[in-house]
Amino acid sequence: MSLIVQKYGGTSVQDIDRIRNVARRVIQTRKEGHDVVVVVSAMAGETNRLIELARSVSPNPDEREYDQIISTGEQVTIGLLALALQSAGQPARSFLGHQVKILTDSVYSKARIKNIDAQVIFDTLKKGMVVVVAGFQGMDEEGNITTLGRGGSDTTGVALAAALKADLCEIYTDVDGIYTTDPRICPEALKLKKISYEEMLELASLGAKVLQIRSVEFAAKYGVNLVVRSSLNDNEGTRVTKEDKDMEEVVVSGITLNKDEAKISLRRLVDKPGIAMKIFRPIAEAAINVDMIVQNISEDGHTDMTFTVPRTDLVRAQGIIKKVAEDIGCKKVDADEDIAKVSVVGLGMRSHAGVASKIFQTLAENNVNIEMISTSEIKVSVVVKKKDGEKAVKVLHEAFELGGKG
Amino acid sequence: MSLIVQKYGGTSVQDIDRIRNVARRVIQTRKEGHDVVVVVSAMAGETNRLIELARSVSPNPDEREYDQIISTGEQVTIGLLALALQSAGQPARSFLGHQVKILTDSVYSKARIKNIDAQVIFDTLKKGMVVVVAGFQGMDEEGNITTLGRGGSDTTGVALAAALKADLCEIYTDVDGIYTTDPRICPEALKLKKISYEEMLELASLGAKVLQIRSVEFAAKYGVNLVVRSSLNDNEGTRVTKEDKDMEEVVVSGITLNKDEAKISLRRLVDKPGIAMKIFRPIAEAAINVDMIVQNISEDGHTDMTFTVPRTDLVRAQGIIKKVAEDIGCKKVDADEDIAKVSVVGLGMRSHAGVASKIFQTLAENNVNIEMISTSEIKVSVVVKKKDGEKAVKVLHEAFELGGKG
Repeated sequence: MSLIVQKYGGTSVQDIDRIRNVARRVIQTRKEGHDVVVVVSAMAGETNRLIELARSVSPNPDEREYDQIISTGEQVTIGLLALALQSAGQPARSFLGHQVKILTDSVYSKARIKNIDAQVIFDTLKKGMVVVVAGFQGMDEEGNITTLGRGGSDTTGVALAAALKADLCEIYTDVDGIYTTDPRICPEALKLKKISYEEMLELASLGAKVLQIRSVEFAAKYGVNLVVRSSLNDNEGTRVTKEDKDMEEVVVSGITLNKDEAKISLRRLVDKPGIAMKIFRPIAEAAINVDMIVQNISEDGHTDMTFTVPRTDLVRAQGIIKKVAEDIGCKKVDADEDIAKVSVVGLGMRSHAGVASKIFQTLAENNVNIEMISTSEIKVSVVVKKKDGEKAVKVLHEAFELGGKG
Repeated sequence: MSLIVQKYGGTSVQDIDRIRNVARRVIQTRKEGHDVVVVVSAMAGETNRLIELARSVSPNPDEREYDQIISTGEQVTIGLLALALQSAGQPARSFLGHQVKILTDSVYSKARIKNIDAQVIFDTLKKGMVVVVAGFQGMDEEGNITTLGRGGSDTTGVALAAALKADLCEIYTDVDGIYTTDPRICPEALKLKKISYEEMLELASLGAKVLQIRSVEFAAKYGVNLVVRSSLNDNEGTRVTKEDKDMEEVVVSGITLNKDEAKISLRRLVDKPGIAMKIFRPIAEAAINVDMIVQNISEDGHTDMTFTVPRTDLVRAQGIIKKVAEDIGCKKVDADEDIAKVSVVGLGMRSHAGVASKIFQTLAENNVNIEMISTSEIKVSVVVKKKDGEKAVKVLHEAFELGGKG
């Protein structure tokens, strides 16, 4: 007998029929002889309704009160699912975050889990019950209700799986798993059977649709076996796990496209120590997330520096950089929103040379101009014109033979 | 400086405008130099929406899960009110039942408060904040969420006032206070300035619209000064307090009408010890609330027994009584739904003789036939035909000169 944690997202519990469907799946798992802990999100749309209510009172709501309000969505779902299980003959009991002592820090709206007391869950499982836990929420040391950020129920599921030493954590959603790229761009995209935590983290912009990134970090840290699959069919899903031999032989696992960034360039900077610090410290202090940073080689004591930020933060970043530029004697600052970032991810890059050059060659052959390049151990990212983004994904997907056989 | 507990019902917080209105009233009270603890209900209609959701999954929902679900309504309101107070410049902080340690028994859906830990409230008030507490909910010793029954937020307010030794507990609703009778029946009905706990309890069917009966028992037990008033105007309201000299001089305070009962009669019972027990024990075991019981004097060793039950329980009660009747050899059982109960309540009855006879005379003069009579120390109730109910209220209201001067 195994212990399985199943997490169901908002679309999987969006109405009473879907909740009954989840109850059936849980009961099926029980019948296969497993103990089950279920984590659920709020019914689809409910969290947004609550956010609108809060914002209609206060456009910039106090975050403690905001969490107090928006954590109620999950509370309703756990009660409904427990009732659905009971009325199908399966004893069940629901628990709020604080009732299973999901202790977090006090960073409202994006709290991090510090500890979980598994005892009450084990006690309840021992009585033959299914345990239903509210996702997305916890409690800080003072007893305040906290929430874990968008997609936080994934993290609740993975954290519970880690605390309970569960054999498996299944993340149920409305897609079949993780694909080699977005099937809306490449209809030939294939579902991955297996992917490593590291790759999953690099595939953030693919995964964000189905998996909160923090939950993957958590899973990697505690070695939780994750499966991403659909609650609406019995397809196999994608296993996210620690890397193994098979994986290393796959050069490229997936390709992502991100059109939500903008780039800022500082031209002809005096090339001396401390310049980068002067640029990026105030940006970090403003909590703006810098993604790629590229600095060209120095020429006659001057250099160019370019970096990308989320497009929604561009105006703020420009304001900061304008001041910094004056300070360091830089005369020319450019900003460009008309960009797309294409990333190619794969564990095999570590041992297979030539991935980067194949990318550059493929894009060149297809007349896609590269504006920035950045590489990590298992990823190559390039920035191109926004209009070229989807084309770049398609030609690279084909070049690395990721698609289904025609 | 006083400490005031204010409780606002569902219609007082039914939308964002009303919530802002409550915030203004609270801030006004603060400006008058008082500390304020606010208790709020769910937004009008919200608890019913949640009940329907629960019942759509399970017509007879498990009460623990039911409470888990329906307690979320108040959680949303406290957050919204705290935000409204903050955005009007008044520091505020919201608390769930378990966060101020409102400890109850484990009788889900009608739990009783056992203890409240006032410390966190005092600490928060000391910081100059308004404390906003979720009504209707608590937590049992095992940490399960409980609810206090319909109107339970009144009891939360009164219990907090008792625990905090507050100077005043104001119950805000959508009517101006307690009236001598239902103004829809008697337009001349007057608002009472003051009423004793005992009378308020007897006026249950008037008070139920504005005050949960258990909250009055609680107020009486701990001597909490209650005021019932409207959140929509500045009228004075009705003070519910311990009896004083003035009150005793008022013979009759109010008249109530209840059309939700039915009566059952057992005819020609053998009059011997143990009969009443045989009839009422199974009724009590079925949790059917018997109100009036009348037994006539015995004639040739036989007697008649008549009692009233809530009309919604009549069919169940008849089923039980049918069996009992066979058992005790009673051949004739009648049931009658076509009744109304009219009650005349007043502390002065204790010392003023003749109230009952004045009632009987007034009804006789107006051709209202009396079917049952039952009296307590400060109340006379009569059962009449349903069609005569409102007429009886009107003529008695006039006879005891309760109305406004014409």
